[in-house]
Formats: sequence, structure tokens, C-alpha cells
Amino acid sequence: MSKPIWIKHAAQLATLASEGKGPRSKEAMSELGLIEDGSIWIEEGMIKAVGTTNELEERYADRVNEAEVVDATDHLVTPGLVDPHTHVVYGGSREREFEMRLEGASYMDIMNAGGGIHATTRMTREALEEELIEQTTLRLDSFLAHGVTTVEGKSGYGMNLETELKQLRVMKKLQEQHAIDLVPTFMGAHAVPAEYKGREDEFVDQLINEMLPVVAEEKLAEFNDVFCEKGVFTPEQTERILDAGKRFGLIPKIHADEIESYGGAELAAKIGSISAEHLLKASDAGIKAMAKAGTIACLLPATALYLREEAAAGRKMIDEGVAVAISTDCNPGSSPTTSMPLVMNLACISMRLTPAEALTAATYNAACAINREEKVGSLEVGKQADIVLWNVKNYQELQYLFGVNHVKAVWKKGVKVV
Amino acid sequence: MSKPIWIKHAAQLATLASEGKGPRSKEAMSELGLIEDGSIWIEEGMIKAVGTTNELEERYADRVNEAEVVDATDHLVTPGLVDPHTHVVYGGSREREFEMRLEGASYMDIMNAGGGIHATTRMTREALEEELIEQTTLRLDSFLAHGVTTVEGKSGYGMNLETELKQLRVMKKLQEQHAIDLVPTFMGAHAVPAEYKGREDEFVDQLINEMLPVVAEEKLAEFNDVFCEKGVFTPEQTERILDAGKRFGLIPKIHADEIESYGGAELAAKIGSISAEHLLKASDAGIKAMAKAGTIACLLPATALYLREEAAAGRKMIDEGVAVAISTDCNPGSSPTTSMPLVMNLACISMRLTPAEALTAATYNAACAINREEKVGSLEVGKQADIVLWNVKNYQELQYLFGVNHVKAVWKKGVKVV
Ligand SMILES: [Zn+2]
Ligand SMILES: [Zn+2]
Repeated sequence: MSKPIWIKHAAQLATLASEGKGPRSKEAMSELGLIEDGSIWIEEGMIKAVGTTNELEERYADRVNEAEVVDATDHLVTPGLVDPHTHVVYGGSREREFEMRLEGASYMDIMNAGGGIHATTRMTREALEEELIEQTTLRLDSFLAHGVTTVEGKSGYGMNLETELKQLRVMKKLQEQHAIDLVPTFMGAHAVPAEYKGREDEFVDQLINEMLPVVAEEKLAEFNDVFCEKGVFTPEQTERILDAGKRFGLIPKIHADEIESYGGAELAAKIGSISAEHLLKASDAGIKAMAKAGTIACLLPATALYLREEAAAGRKMIDEGVAVAISTDCNPGSSPTTSMPLVMNLACISMRLTPAEALTAATYNAACAINREEKVGSLEVGKQADIVLWNVKNYQELQYLFGVNHVKAVWKKGVKVV
Repeated sequence: MSKPIWIKHAAQLATLASEGKGPRSKEAMSELGLIEDGSIWIEEGMIKAVGTTNELEERYADRVNEAEVVDATDHLVTPGLVDPHTHVVYGGSREREFEMRLEGASYMDIMNAGGGIHATTRMTREALEEELIEQTTLRLDSFLAHGVTTVEGKSGYGMNLETELKQLRVMKKLQEQHAIDLVPTFMGAHAVPAEYKGREDEFVDQLINEMLPVVAEEKLAEFNDVFCEKGVFTPEQTERILDAGKRFGLIPKIHADEIESYGGAELAAKIGSISAEHLLKASDAGIKAMAKAGTIACLLPATALYLREEAAAGRKMIDEGVAVAISTDCNPGSSPTTSMPLVMNLACISMRLTPAEALTAATYNAACAINREEKVGSLEVGKQADIVLWNVKNYQELQYLFGVNHVKAVWKKGVKVV
């Protein structure tokens, strides 16, 4: 049996205590469950008590001597951050393409030089499982260093059965090997592979009839995601794929309305998708439909920054009653970053979320978006001891002193990993 | 005598070798002086040799055993970053104001709640010298952790003689106490103090007749900076202040054309200002004049991000022949950050600099903007051993994998400080 850990005297303990009420919207996004001079008692990787330091001192009076004590005086303590949308498993690196673009190369120049998503597909197809594990481990280490203790990851750089399975198996192995909790999503419909150009429906058939059954059989994914966008997959194709996934027990997600307003938000609401992603161009009707259906908006402001697009209307969505989560979208083409702290900052700066809303969007609501709110995303008795100690004194500073990774220490299931 | 340090096998050593040629413009901004399998020999805090690992191995064949060896295999090595524009010495903290604004408070609400620059002025006036030293030390520690080894700092939150001197004395003490090199600028003309509203010329007289002589007498500053903007100081007032400063040996700088096109860039060129700052709204004529005069553009893309303004036209300025430097603008109102790595990323993302140009702008050109290019900003024999080892393998990745502080180790004058 490991020693109990007692984190005490936190200047601010943001518990995000939610009592299992599900995704938070409107004013509930601002309720951080703050405790001044806050304290947490951890045993066997789980949270056993949360309260003021005085309360826990009294409660554990006869056991304080056996605990490892962490003095959090002058520091903010929060739940481990949750990143509910990444493409973290991929082969190769595309920094030279980034440079070419800034040197004036056109989209076609880059395609001709073998760049773009098809470059990542090629490099992911070519990579050995061990190589993908090695590369992804470095990225997960970086996530941990940024206070992220749970990461969703999508397949989708294979676009054939073999490589999609390889990506998902890599996630399964990393879930066993790495401290981070990895939550797998099947996204065979990430793009139309070059070899199916003009025969999109055939690819959809293949995905439904050949890929989904194997993914489900091997229990390699919990979610099923589709890139619903003009010129990629239509709302009809998206619905077919997600319906088929549901029959295999996979929960739907949709990459929706990133480039054009295409009815993606409306579709997400209609089919009961747990979340809709991106939403830069979501229509007013789509936003209202999501609010009504309880679909979580998973917003990706670092991607908008990197692509020089206007960020999604996060402020408006919250005001309309949508539960908002945020994510890095970590991927080699449109958001090669692992910094959830920066994503929280951008949620405030670019999307006008308040500091409290940004923290909710990166913890409790993010956990809801990947169906993990019973285990992570808040500091409550019975949840995993996934905890971050920050080098700031309150949750406002965490967003105000922007562009800096303020992580001081991270515990994952009660083990200090940073 | 301390042990020599031998950094060897750098995957890429970006020397920025410049042979004292002064600010770099056009193609010269892309010349990083790259050495593969690069190596540096450090003694007594100075760079004694730079070359390939083979070259240095041969040269120091009889001394390699006495050196402390740093293996930089697979890593990028660059000069320590230089931040040529900060307001790093200030009292108080304004995170609550940031939150109020996001909660919907208007400019007037915040002013009425005692916020804005006048809040910082009040808190800086009230702060004891020791308090300012303590707060600023934390910020300088954060700069170091982000690979910044030289920081310019401005007074300007006093706007009266007593507090301006207090800020400059704090910098003088920190220059002695802290590992970072701090370069002081007098900026009494940062705003018109509330008590001089409507009597701006009287304040200018006071600044010229009462403040400048004392600052010069006590040798508290090397540069003299003015906020030249409509409603603050006119180009005429700016010129008067900077001319007076020149007579005391202070080198001119100008906060120019941030909010409106106001002739600031033109004025900087005309009076031989070493640099002009911000330049979000600089006119085409102003940019051409700066190129011709050799005035360095000191661009602040993190400030633009934080204020949701379009970043300065960095790409265009370089194409027109202006030497560009970049900076955090670290200050409590419009850029509360210490991350030069993020500023480099934003230089690429928002201003379309190439990764090579961004690195030049944050090292050699930044050193030129504060008259330190003979000591820092490049890795050349005879310069200070201010060096950063990065957790990336090339200079492109440093910008591509954005939002992350990739610093692995920092040496300041040959001493490992991070
Ligand atoms: Zn995505
Ligand atoms: Zn400034």
C-alpha cells in the first residue's frame, strides 16, 4: 500500500465539483467550486477527501503523520486537464512544409513536394508500430508536462483497414504503457483517400462493412468520428457512418462546419452526437439545435490561430446555452501543439470565454465530451487523483499570464509524474 | 578558474554569425550560419571557438579531458534570445481586470474600478523598491526559463521623478543581482499623468528639465523612449524629448503608430531613432523611410494577439528592406507574458516571417535594437557565452511545434542557469 498524499494550503483549490450532473452550460460553466486554503487527501490513486485544510486536518488527525505532505501555499490547484480531441498518433514530421509555406510556396507546390495530409497518411502507413509508439510517447510526455492527464486520440491517417488498426493498437498499447489515459476514437472517415477520389460512397461502404466490424470486434475504439465538410463527406454519408458505428456501440462525434457552414452542427444535434468539433462556421440554427440537444461544442482555438482563421463563436455558444469544451486538436497539419494551457488562454483571448469558463471547458466539460466525467475532470471523492499544482496564485492568473506553461507539478492517479 | 565547457554534436548549431555588420535586413535575415554536428568551446564565460565537432576536437585535442562536456546530439543550439522591449518592472497585478473585461465590463467600468495603466502607476508608485525587485525577479526567472538571456526594460509607470528613478534603480540592482543582462530605458513619456491632463507641454518641460538630467547624471539609462500616439505625445513633443535625451547621451526609441497612423515611423527614421516599436498602423512611406534610415522595426505580435489587433506587417517590412526585431512587450496591461518562444511562433503565424527570420529577429537583430550586438545575439568568438539548448532537432521545429517552451538548458555567460 502506498503512502497517502495530502496536498494542503492551496491558495485556491478549483474542484469543479459537479456531482455527476453532466455537461455544464450557461452560468454553470463559471462555477469552479473554489475552496480557499484548500486541501485534498489521496490514497491508492483516488481522491478520498476534499475540503479546507482545517477540515481535513481534523478528519485525518490520527493519520497526518503517515501522509506525504505537499504544501501548496500561494498556489492554484486544479483537476488534471483533459484534451478531448487530438490526432496524436501519426508518422513523420512536417516542419519543412511549414517553412515552405512561409517562404511563399503555394498549396500546389506543397502537394507536388509530397506534403499535406497525404504526406502524413503515407508516413503513418510506412511507420512501424514501434516507431509510432516512440513518437507518440514524446507527445504524450509533453501533454503531461502541460498538465494534461487524459487525452482523446483519433485514428484517421491510415484510411485503410491495416493502418487504421495500427493507429488504434498503438493507442491501446500506450494506454497500458503511459501514465496518461488515452481515449480512442475511430476516424476512418478523416479524408477521402486518394485512391477513392470520385468513388466516395464506395469508400463509405468499405468503412462500414470492413473497417467498423473489426474495430468493434477488437474493442479498439469508443467513439466514431467523421470529417463532415463540403468536398469530403456529406451530411448523408456522415449519418450513414455514424449510424453504423452506433450499432457497434461506438458513440458519434462530428468534425463539423470548420471550413463552410454545411449543416454539421444541426446534424450533430439531430443524431445525438456527444460532441461536434471545430464549428468555426456553425449556423445560428445549428448552435440553437446543439443547445437544445445537449451536444457539446468542442472548440479548437489553437487551430484557428495557426490557420489564421477567426476562432469559433465560443462566447455566443455559451450565451445560447451550449456546453463548451476546448482542445488542442494536436495534429501535424493544422495544430502541431500539445499546450492545453495556451488553448485555455486563446479561449479567453480569441473566443471571449471568461477565465472560469475556460477552465471548465478544459476539465469537466472536456471530460464529458469523452464520456469520462465519472472518473476525471473534477476533484471529487471517488474520482481519480489527477491533479495539477500551478505556479500561479489564482485561476485568473492562469489565463492572464498567457503563453506560459505554469505547471509546477502533476499527479496522475496519485503518482507524481511531473 | 572555472572548467571549460564543450557543447558538442549539436544536430544544428545556429550561430547567427554576423561579424559585426549591424542590423540584418532582406535575405540576410535568413542567414543563420548553420553548422551541422556543431560545437562550441566556452571559457571564463566567453565563447572561445565555434565550429564542427571534428574541428574543435582537433583544435582542443590536448584539453578535451579538462572540459565539462555537453552532448547536444539531436538538438538545436542557438544564441540566448534577446528581448529588446519590455516594461518588466511594475507593481501590482491586474488579472482581475482581465476577468472583468471578459465578463463584459466596459473600459469605463474598469477605469472606475481603478484599473488600466493608472492602476499600475499607482501600484508602482506605492511599491517599495524591495517589492519591485522581488516581483521583477520572478519575471526575469521566467524569461530565463524561456531562453531569454538579455532583456531591455523601461521605466514609465512612475511618470514622476521619484518613481521613474525607483524603477531605473531597481533595474540597476537587478543587473547586479540577476543572471539576466538588463538594459535600461528611460520612458518618463509613457503616458500623460492624470495630474497633467490638458497641460501636456508642461509635463514635457518637466520631463526634459527635471527628469532627464537626473537620469543622465546617475547613469540610469541608455535609451530614451516616448509613446508617440494621438492623444498622448505628438510627434513634435516626441522630437523635443528625444532631442533633449540625445544631448545627455541617451539613444532614442519611439513607440510608434500602434493605434493610429501618426507619422511615428517617419519620425523614427528622421531623427535616427535606433528602433521604432509596435508599428501596427505604420504607413507605407514610414516603412520605406525606416528601411532607408536603417531604423530597426521592433514588432510585438503577442501584444497584437492579446489586444485582438491585426499584427504588424512584418513580412512586408522585411520585403521592403527594414531590419525586423521582435519582443514580448512584457507589461501588465497589453501583454502580460514572458514567452519569447511564443513571440517567435507568432512572428511566423501572424506576421508571416519564415522560421529563420523569426530566429534572427529574436537574437541578432534584437541585440542590435538595444546596442548589444557586440556582446550577445550570435555565437561568435569573443562574445558572451549566452546559449540555449532546445528540445527540438532543427530551427524549423522551434516555430512549427508552436505554443510550447522547448528550452532544455540555458547558459548565461557560461554558467548553466536553466
Ligand atoms: Zn480533428
Ligand atoms: Zn512598450
